[in-house]
Amino acid sequence: MIVVLTGGTGGAKFVEGLRHVVAPEELTFIVNTGDDLEWWGLYVSPDVDSIIYALAGRLSKERGWGVKGDTFFCLETMKALDEPIWFHVGDRDLAVHLLRSKLLAEGKTVTTVAAEIAAKFGIRSRVLPMSNSRVETRVDTPSGELSFQEYFVQRWYQDPVKSVRFAGATEAEPAPGVLEAIQQASTIILAPSNPISSIGPILAVPGIREALVESNATIAAVSPIIGGKAVSGPAGIMMAAQGLPVSIAGVTKAYEDILDVLIADDRDAAAAQKLQSSGLRVHCTNTIMKTREDKIELARTVLAACESKHAATIKQR
Amino acid sequence: MIVVLTGGTGGAKFVEGLRHVVAPEELTFIVNTGDDLEWWGLYVSPDVDSIIYALAGRLSKERGWGVKGDTFFCLETMKALDEPIWFHVGDRDLAVHLLRSKLLAEGKTVTTVAAEIAAKFGIRSRVLPMSNSRVETRVDTPSGELSFQEYFVQRWYQDPVKSVRFAGATEAEPAPGVLEAIQQASTIILAPSNPISSIGPILAVPGIREALVESNATIAAVSPIIGGKAVSGPAGIMMAAQGLPVSIAGVTKAYEDILDVLIADDRDAAAAQKLQSSGLRVHCTNTIMKTREDKIELARTVLAACESKHAATIKQR
Repeated sequence: MIVVLTGGTGGAKFVEGLRHVVAPEELTFIVNTGDDLEWWGLYVSPDVDSIIYALAGRLSKERGWGVKGDTFFCLETMKALDEPIWFHVGDRDLAVHLLRSKLLAEGKTVTTVAAEIAAKFGIRSRVLPMSNSRVETRVDTPSGELSFQEYFVQRWYQDPVKSVRFAGATEAEPAPGVLEAIQQASTIILAPSNPISSIGPILAVPGIREALVESNATIAAVSPIIGGKAVSGPAGIMMAAQGLPVSIAGVTKAYEDILDVLIADDRDAAAAQKLQSSGLRVHCTNTIMKTREDKIELARTVLAACESKHAATIKQR
Repeated sequence: MIVVLTGGTGGAKFVEGLRHVVAPEELTFIVNTGDDLEWWGLYVSPDVDSIIYALAGRLSKERGWGVKGDTFFCLETMKALDEPIWFHVGDRDLAVHLLRSKLLAEGKTVTTVAAEIAAKFGIRSRVLPMSNSRVETRVDTPSGELSFQEYFVQRWYQDPVKSVRFAGATEAEPAPGVLEAIQQASTIILAPSNPISSIGPILAVPGIREALVESNATIAAVSPIIGGKAVSGPAGIMMAAQGLPVSIAGVTKAYEDILDVLIADDRDAAAAQKLQSSGLRVHCTNTIMKTREDKIELARTVLAACESKHAATIKQR
């Protein structure tokens, strides 16, 4: 059984490869809900949806979020009605938000609802939101505290970040199935997601980090940082704000108590060698996922690195 | 000031003509909400929306409801997710349902929300839902009691109708502005809507019928029955179920305590003559609204008939 902790567009891309190399029944995804939002009166869970779309082969490749080939006629009308449209919702994507909101209003949990929606998309892997409680990633900036989506989507992550917190995390519990999945996993992968805003909220739910520490599984992380920069998005900015170096060493530090294997990009081979000499298993490969083949190859490499009993070799570029 | 009681597709068509012959500020619409429904978790007010779309020039001519040129991609996705789709909602139409539901969830009344939405569409006429309370048109059939939309849209009005009732009507109050508009009107028009399911719910709200009886305005009704048959929809079936003849005499009877002028179709000239000899002012004209010109001409004729001090002539066909 393979468990993947994931969030954001990097995680969804990685999942698009992984689904081609592992039987769906062997995969459990524990998904960030820290950037969930209320939008147009609906409850939207962008990271859960991205994983569902990725697993269903419906994720938009151009955008990295939302449904492939979606249209935006409802959004255009919302704009004409002077409603905010900075968070883009396509007409097909909207169906999922409507359905989720309706099921939640009937009293179902986000976990049950995610399972129902995943099943309707024909998905046989398990998609588990990290918690049934609301945990909100809040970004403190000179302009005040922002929700993650306000910071990231509405304001294009241009605000300096003073700190990040996860409101509600201390009272939250892992969603049913999360701890059991971690306990039963042979391999656990931290997707190439933002360590602070995508993986951070998951690890902030009391009990999850502890379960990872105690797990007998091989725990691997794919670095979202290449050559001292985030592949995309604000991972670098947020890591710096949380006092982490913006490097594979910083990624390692974010996960230091749980990590067995780091998958870094070939471009970071020198830094990887240093980390390896300090005792961590590090495997360098191409981590940039441009094509379908890149994604599949990365997934294969990560799984192989987890199975390898000895430190993987590092190819110098 | 002209007040129009309206609902359904016949009412919306009539409004499309009326808006071309009367200054918008002089028009107040009192709109049926008896067929409002909860759909995909949203609050939908079809008759209010039809009037708004008609006034904004956005009503679909082909369908008679919804937005001109709308697409149905969200609906297609809903279908793929096994959600019911018998009530058709287009992507652009959906924006209005989202906005209304959001504003209602904020605690606003349906009246305030209708006014806000109408304003966003640039409408300068007043669009008043009949009541802020929920009044539901319920259709009793051999298969049980159905909501109006279940009876009409889902089951294509194929069920025999035993009776019709307006659940919640006795406890309802007219929406703010409704009684005042009736009191201040010089002309009141009952649109060519279903007398039972479109105008019936409005008249069932305590106080509205009484205000019409007491009004000094000329009250005219446009018959939705031509030659003993409804122009469209279940008006005939429902009138029969409520013990009314399916004829212009039946329409007259439905409104007998409030009616000054009946506008009937030329095809009903003989019956019109009989009604006229019993003392009612009856004006015959073409009431079939196929073209824009038909709609404008009908609106002009109705207004002229209301202004005429003497019984209008009836042209025999």
